[in-house]
Amino acid sequence: MFKQFLKKCYIIGTVPFNFCTMSNSWPDRIISGIQPTGILHIGNYYGAVKNWINLQNSNEIICSIVDFHSITLSYASKLLDHKKLPENILLMTACLLGCGLNSEKSILFLQSEVPQHTQLCWVLSCLTTVPRLARQPQYREKSENIKDIPSGLFFYPVLQAADILIYKATKVPVGKDQLQHLQLASHLARKFNALYGETFPIPELIFSGNIASKIKNLRNPHKKMSKSYPDKLSRIEITDSPDDITEKIKKAVTDCTSQVTYEPDIRPGVSNLVGIHSVITGRSPAALCDEVKHLNTGQYKLLVAEILIETLKPIQKEINQLLNDKSFLISVLKNGAIKASKITSDTWTVVRKKIGCHYFL
Amino acid sequence: MFKQFLKKCYIIGTVPFNFCTMSNSWPDRIISGIQPTGILHIGNYYGAVKNWINLQNSNEIICSIVDFHSITLSYASKLLDHKKLPENILLMTACLLGCGLNSEKSILFLQSEVPQHTQLCWVLSCLTTVPRLARQPQYREKSENIKDIPSGLFFYPVLQAADILIYKATKVPVGKDQLQHLQLASHLARKFNALYGETFPIPELIFSGNIASKIKNLRNPHKKMSKSYPDKLSRIEITDSPDDITEKIKKAVTDCTSQVTYEPDIRPGVSNLVGIHSVITGRSPAALCDEVKHLNTGQYKLLVAEILIETLKPIQKEINQLLNDKSFLISVLKNGAIKASKITSDTWTVVRKKIGCHYFL
Repeated sequence: MFKQFLKKCYIIGTVPFNFCTMSNSWPDRIISGIQPTGILHIGNYYGAVKNWINLQNSNEIICSIVDFHSITLSYASKLLDHKKLPENILLMTACLLGCGLNSEKSILFLQSEVPQHTQLCWVLSCLTTVPRLARQPQYREKSENIKDIPSGLFFYPVLQAADILIYKATKVPVGKDQLQHLQLASHLARKFNALYGETFPIPELIFSGNIASKIKNLRNPHKKMSKSYPDKLSRIEITDSPDDITEKIKKAVTDCTSQVTYEPDIRPGVSNLVGIHSVITGRSPAALCDEVKHLNTGQYKLLVAEILIETLKPIQKEINQLLNDKSFLISVLKNGAIKASKITSDTWTVVRKKIGCHYFL
Repeated sequence: MFKQFLKKCYIIGTVPFNFCTMSNSWPDRIISGIQPTGILHIGNYYGAVKNWINLQNSNEIICSIVDFHSITLSYASKLLDHKKLPENILLMTACLLGCGLNSEKSILFLQSEVPQHTQLCWVLSCLTTVPRLARQPQYREKSENIKDIPSGLFFYPVLQAADILIYKATKVPVGKDQLQHLQLASHLARKFNALYGETFPIPELIFSGNIASKIKNLRNPHKKMSKSYPDKLSRIEITDSPDDITEKIKKAVTDCTSQVTYEPDIRPGVSNLVGIHSVITGRSPAALCDEVKHLNTGQYKLLVAEILIETLKPIQKEINQLLNDKSFLISVLKNGAIKASKITSDTWTVVRKKIGCHYFL
């Protein structure tokens, strides 16, 4: 089933993808969301954000900082400090802009500022069922170790569907872990259209299937690099200092073989470093391994660290400048919410008319 | 537990209740909601609406036509025709105004027009749990005969809690069947206050414990009079013609004893008629039975029908006039939404600040 679904998806690298070749009658519109739960790491950057930035030259990108999603687990897991949330929202804004998201071309906004997300969420919740939501794999996985599962976690994919459909988005760049949620959004779009007439395009996945999406945890290269992993040495955050980057790469788990090779299955640690190197330079792992065959893994780590430091330097400079101008960040989010609201108001006007929640005869 | 809870509730009849004696620091505000699923019947009128109207002289009443609630079951049960919903919304508006709701003193509006209801619903859904919602008796009862339970039905009480808390309501006049939902709203208010500091008053039930709330189904006097019961002869709608009223009362189920007595447990049919008579006239069932002791049940039915016809006549006249002026009904709902939104915007500004869903440092 997963493979079948993938056939319908668009696999992209970090190279801009020309959507003009796709056939449907809806104007292309790409929606993506990111939680304001911390600073971006290089897995986020190369696996997701850089793709959005590449796409923005030829597409309308709507990028939502999904604060309503980030509170879903906060009371159960205490992962989120609500007092730090506003600061994290501005930090994420600065990171996204610093990475190259263009606030003129694209729409960058805070989810909770656009009320039609939750209004459509309610309507969609009447179109899906309790058993269907209970079967969502991510819900089952996340709720496994929680006694009192917050109902927000259960409802999460319905809000995500609303986040997509309220913009009549045609393409959604998400990771493999979000695949079932996108399937639910597509199912809800089809169900709404069948009941009330053509209203929503069926959103399709843009699947980031390249190495960039597979940047691994430096302390445990069997896992993805992740914001929530407790050991900070496991990830390179895009604002890390040169010393931090060097320390983290030096301490990255590798094996006892000193040669640098790209064999992700049997040598995940060193292969992850080659993968990162490949993503940054755009060169193939094989070519890179050949080039550094005179280096042992210790020496190679220093090289990768140096390249990372140099690559992140201009982004960091930009982020620092942005963080010194909070009023600019605020104005970006304010304008973003205004632009987003124009689209969502139009969609909501159509939706409420179709479902009968109005009184204009 | 039920009895314990009732001790905290305010039992009212149809007589205005003086809330000034209640002790809390919040200004009294009463919220009530009604689904736009059809015309009011006399059970709704005497059991609920008349109480709101009595209360509006000394209290701020906020009355919401809850269209978002009415769509919860529509796809599963086909009870609701979405094409008829806008007409039903205006019909309910005319009925409420015709019964005496004063749109200047009170706030009458359509739930879906005030977006902060669903925004707060999302926040509250993160504060309650899946097991707690699954235990709600009304959910268990309503979902019993449905294979694919809509998730809107599951979340229904969370939206209802948001409907109440977004107005910082202090009192909620509801029937016994809504008691657990109000308990959930109180629980959520307490939980929010504990996590983020005093924000919401704990809403209290105004329990309509008199005969009016116990008007029974004319075809099956063991059940409550209900909008959704398939046989229309089971209820007197407030817009019924004199002929319809006479027919329905004549066909009301009674027993083989011809005497008119008030013994609800052993003679529910005739006692229901005495109950209706008592509610209309404000006189005790015992006094009425004594007064009509010369009549058999057949003759008594004609008397009750006549009293009902006369009582409903001025209300019907008012409703008919209102239905001829749709633009007035629309202006009432529009103004109501504006007045409601002023309150909900203020509450939402406070809530988003407390939970961190903002970026103003």
